[in-house]
Amino acid sequence: MSAYAFPPAVEALITQFAKLPGVGRKSAVRLAFCVLGWPDGQAEAFAGAVLDAKHGIGLCPVCHNLTDQSPCALCAEERRDHALICVVAEPRDVAAIERTREFTGVYHVLHGVISPSAAKSPDELTISDLIRRVDAGGVREVILATNPDTEGDTTALYIARLLRPFGVTVTRLAYGMPIGGHLEFTDEITLLRALEGRRTI
Amino acid sequence: MSAYAFPPAVEALITQFAKLPGVGRKSAVRLAFCVLGWPDGQAEAFAGAVLDAKHGIGLCPVCHNLTDQSPCALCAEERRDHALICVVAEPRDVAAIERTREFTGVYHVLHGVISPSAAKSPDELTISDLIRRVDAGGVREVILATNPDTEGDTTALYIARLLRPFGVTVTRLAYGMPIGGHLEFTDEITLLRALEGRRTI
Repeated sequence: MSAYAFPPAVEALITQFAKLPGVGRKSAVRLAFCVLGWPDGQAEAFAGAVLDAKHGIGLCPVCHNLTDQSPCALCAEERRDHALICVVAEPRDVAAIERTREFTGVYHVLHGVISPSAAKSPDELTISDLIRRVDAGGVREVILATNPDTEGDTTALYIARLLRPFGVTVTRLAYGMPIGGHLEFTDEITLLRALEGRRTI
Repeated sequence: MSAYAFPPAVEALITQFAKLPGVGRKSAVRLAFCVLGWPDGQAEAFAGAVLDAKHGIGLCPVCHNLTDQSPCALCAEERRDHALICVVAEPRDVAAIERTREFTGVYHVLHGVISPSAAKSPDELTISDLIRRVDAGGVREVILATNPDTEGDTTALYIARLLRPFGVTVTRLAYGMPIGGHLEFTDEITLLRALEGRRTI
């Protein structure tokens, strides 16, 4: 009896799903068979969304947020306070802050935090670009809104030290957030409190 | 301040991921950002796998298993015992049985089980095609390998009753499998024991 496997196209789909974070082989099989059960149009919409997102989305040259225009919609908005920069670790954290509907400044996305465990060094983040933005002038305050955990705190302190020579106010979100929590999963009210209670470091 | 959302292409990708089983909004955001972080080639391979699987894979006209040829590789294999049909609920169950490397017969995939809760009636399964296969002659034994749970047992009994007039041996997998278990997640040895101990019903 020859060894049986799923048809190659099915096996390929399972392999692809297994590359997603938190998806093991068994989950990948389940997801693949779900997709196989979809109407053609649905599967095409799914594949199209992957390609559109990859091809249509780049990084804002100013704030490094994900964007489909250059500069991004937030950096291009004139009514925003461009002298107030909120520094976050990830693009999804921008969405979390925006959900408070109270922050009127602009952003800077680091794309990570300084992490000895993940071997992420400051050079791999967009910190030097942040320094350049502040150095160019016109910035009044930088809010360091990295997560309140060890790596987020380390990254905030590191950036705060670099910004000291420029004489701008450097603040950190108030610890209204639960310690060890994540911006992304914090409700709007808690985030709002944290924004209001921000303090100089 | 205008309401902020992710760029439309990112939002579309999140929406697509959220359509997968067991993927909520937060998981969908995580998966979407993972895909956005992939190199272009990887994202294209992922999208391509979805399309290839949908377009290249159909159902075998004989056994209704997923296949990229007609009839499927298993039905086309001459050395197999075509007088012995193993009836399973889903295509992934075929792979489970094949992993024992001991079953030499062919398959019939029902594409579900009779289920009052999911409002799945016998007409929605491939049961009438199975009866036709047996009626055409040359079948010695039908193994009903649906899962050993209420719906699997009901389906097996229903089919066994329909097959009675044809005088073929109808068997059920031995309860070597844990009750309430799933074929898909059963190890090879247990499945092998269950195959060996199959009994007439």
